[in-house]
Amino acid sequence: MQNSLDNLRTHIHDLSTEEVKQILSEMPPHDVVEVWDDLSRDEALQIFLLFSLEKKVELITELGQSDQEALIERLSEESAREIFEMVEPDDLVDIIQSLSEEVRGNVWRSLSEEARNQMQFLLRFDQDDAAGLMTPRYLAIRRNVTVGQAFAFIRTNATDVETIYYIYVVDDLKRLQGVVSLRDLLFNDDAARLEEIMVTKVVSVQEDMDQEEVAKLLESYDLIALPVVDGYNRLLGIVTFDDAIDVIREEQTEDVYKMGAMDGAADRYSDSSILRLVRKRIPWLTILLIAGTFTTNVISHFESLILAAGFLVWFVPVITQTGGNSGTQSSTLMIRGIAMGEIQFRDVGEVLFKELLVGLTMGILLAGVIILRGVFLPPGVEVIEAVAIGSALLFVVVFSSLIGALAPLVIHRLGLDPTVMAGPLMATLIDVAGLTIYFQAARLILRI
Amino acid sequence: MQNSLDNLRTHIHDLSTEEVKQILSEMPPHDVVEVWDDLSRDEALQIFLLFSLEKKVELITELGQSDQEALIERLSEESAREIFEMVEPDDLVDIIQSLSEEVRGNVWRSLSEEARNQMQFLLRFDQDDAAGLMTPRYLAIRRNVTVGQAFAFIRTNATDVETIYYIYVVDDLKRLQGVVSLRDLLFNDDAARLEEIMVTKVVSVQEDMDQEEVAKLLESYDLIALPVVDGYNRLLGIVTFDDAIDVIREEQTEDVYKMGAMDGAADRYSDSSILRLVRKRIPWLTILLIAGTFTTNVISHFESLILAAGFLVWFVPVITQTGGNSGTQSSTLMIRGIAMGEIQFRDVGEVLFKELLVGLTMGILLAGVIILRGVFLPPGVEVIEAVAIGSALLFVVVFSSLIGALAPLVIHRLGLDPTVMAGPLMATLIDVAGLTIYFQAARLILRI
Repeated sequence: MQNSLDNLRTHIHDLSTEEVKQILSEMPPHDVVEVWDDLSRDEALQIFLLFSLEKKVELITELGQSDQEALIERLSEESAREIFEMVEPDDLVDIIQSLSEEVRGNVWRSLSEEARNQMQFLLRFDQDDAAGLMTPRYLAIRRNVTVGQAFAFIRTNATDVETIYYIYVVDDLKRLQGVVSLRDLLFNDDAARLEEIMVTKVVSVQEDMDQEEVAKLLESYDLIALPVVDGYNRLLGIVTFDDAIDVIREEQTEDVYKMGAMDGAADRYSDSSILRLVRKRIPWLTILLIAGTFTTNVISHFESLILAAGFLVWFVPVITQTGGNSGTQSSTLMIRGIAMGEIQFRDVGEVLFKELLVGLTMGILLAGVIILRGVFLPPGVEVIEAVAIGSALLFVVVFSSLIGALAPLVIHRLGLDPTVMAGPLMATLIDVAGLTIYFQAARLILRI
Repeated sequence: MQNSLDNLRTHIHDLSTEEVKQILSEMPPHDVVEVWDDLSRDEALQIFLLFSLEKKVELITELGQSDQEALIERLSEESAREIFEMVEPDDLVDIIQSLSEEVRGNVWRSLSEEARNQMQFLLRFDQDDAAGLMTPRYLAIRRNVTVGQAFAFIRTNATDVETIYYIYVVDDLKRLQGVVSLRDLLFNDDAARLEEIMVTKVVSVQEDMDQEEVAKLLESYDLIALPVVDGYNRLLGIVTFDDAIDVIREEQTEDVYKMGAMDGAADRYSDSSILRLVRKRIPWLTILLIAGTFTTNVISHFESLILAAGFLVWFVPVITQTGGNSGTQSSTLMIRGIAMGEIQFRDVGEVLFKELLVGLTMGILLAGVIILRGVFLPPGVEVIEAVAIGSALLFVVVFSSLIGALAPLVIHRLGLDPTVMAGPLMATLIDVAGLTIYFQAARLILRI
């Protein structure tokens, strides 16, 4: 499938607009977005206008920010109205928020009075909260309604709700009382009242719950949708599973970026300008550079030792790198464990004990490797020198395994995000301490 | 919520079994799993037996491997039968595969003839493929059935299918002809035939499609379930959205581990023995150590330069670290872009051009920082020396940005997984080349 996509992207300009449209119509939205980059703005618009309304709606919600903006800017008010009427309100909020001031005005003008009100309601909420994910297009019915009446209601009123598979039961004040799945409706008698068959212990979330928690909860219960309520338990909207998947993907990208020493949002690479890429990357590089320069102080401090045993310097990069790697391994395990809710600060004793044993085992193995390498391969050192380096490495590995595990736990305990302690920062901090341990240990063993 | 969970875990042994059971009954399964670790095997069993059957089923599928095994081992054949009859077949396959030989026998004996056949059918497939995720509990109906008949059929036959929200339409040979959502059924007349209202362009997957691709496709179309077919388009089962979420999480953990220089599966930390942790971590550490020792050759090669300008050694760790960091940034962006299908090898020209400009900009800024640091802060170097170091750093940053971007693209092009080029390996490879560039550039500028 990847091949046919590559193929299309290579030959796209040999095909007629009609042919391209035909091919794209049958592709998953995700793939169409990839091909979109290879089209000029005008070609893209031309093909877009040939799509069915359904495909248009699908595509416009999937496109990256800059493609989205370029396309919307070029739409007539007529087409814009037709499309935005069909876009789910939660997606529409996202689109509106990512557009420039000017294009946003275009969208706004194309909306109906009702849609505008709905947008204004949704725009009140923090976009990283449960409420920022929710759609107000859900099904809510009163508790004394019968199953038969509920079916009739759904058949006439539910054409534009996002899911009809859960029906929420509310009271006069819109307070959430229970939930009935469409499945429950089907398997019950038409005369039964909703209050008799509804589940009253509804899994719901507060409007200000963090979106990551919302995704975890939905995942934990394998739900298609979760109701969002305010402080008075009034139903505000629902979050559906597809939004939860988006949140999981988004957080995933952000975590990977943090491990790669970058901050910020999950933009597409090809959408990012040079300046934007520099701004995303330079802060961490500078912080790490400044933190890393303390190693210059460490090395210059051991100048007399280095003059006496110059070979120690040869092994500086491999010692710092190995320390950084074992520390990164520990911190990665902790960060992941914390994120999954599996490890907490209270486990610190068990964790450090484990890391001590793991660090010792690995340190001994690695010391063996570097001693053999040092003695038998160029540049070549004496056996006692190799043993000094190997022993120093052992200490470094044990130290970095312990500190790599401890740091994320402490940071999480302080209420901060332990992901900052992933790879790069951990490695840099370990460099400074690791070099001190290395030179100190070597000095003791070599008796210099 | 996290607080109440911590609270419970701290005080769990002050509560009666009945109280603990009461609290756990109302908790999300995900949280119960966390608390489970704090219970002894016997306490856990005692509480487990008090749960409702539904809760038992929920919990047993969520538990980590070792807790699952310990629990199942202690169940009577009677309880085991009752529970496993309720577990979804796709989950049951996963459980069976993760159990030890011996306990697996227990489970097998507790299954009905029918369930055993079903398991044997599912166990034939590769667990990382679409078929490995699927459940055979789906709804399939013939095309000439009417909407009214379909409803009647669902109401009487569909009590044990995993989702009733999609009804698949098949012919006599079970070949997939179309799909009708329950929503479509509701909004159509009872007399309409399924063939008139079904969607014939069904989004389906082949049995051997990689599970990651399956998850992406389901995500792309926001589907609750995807049908899995064999080479003859015969319906084998369905993959539901909750399984897709599990796949996304699993892949996420594996990617994070790879960036943290570890291989292997996403086990729970507390379930992993010392030996298992060492086995997970030592292969990469050893490979990186051996690759990293080439830096000893580089440094010893420049021995005469170092004798003449000893301060160059002070900056070795910060140079290698910064080179590694900028290379990691580039490779992270590429790996993510490739995974999201956004970047391909054909974009290599555009990518390298961007990275060149980004690398130059960042290199100049970082050179400025290190020159100021070198001149004004201890250990302190001459201006010309600081300029030599700064310029060398500039070269290193540009080089590592380029190689960091190029390597994953090339590796992906060769059909391999570019994630191996994440952080650690990239940093080690850059160390060797980066040090050469650093000393060479410094030698030229200092004219030694």
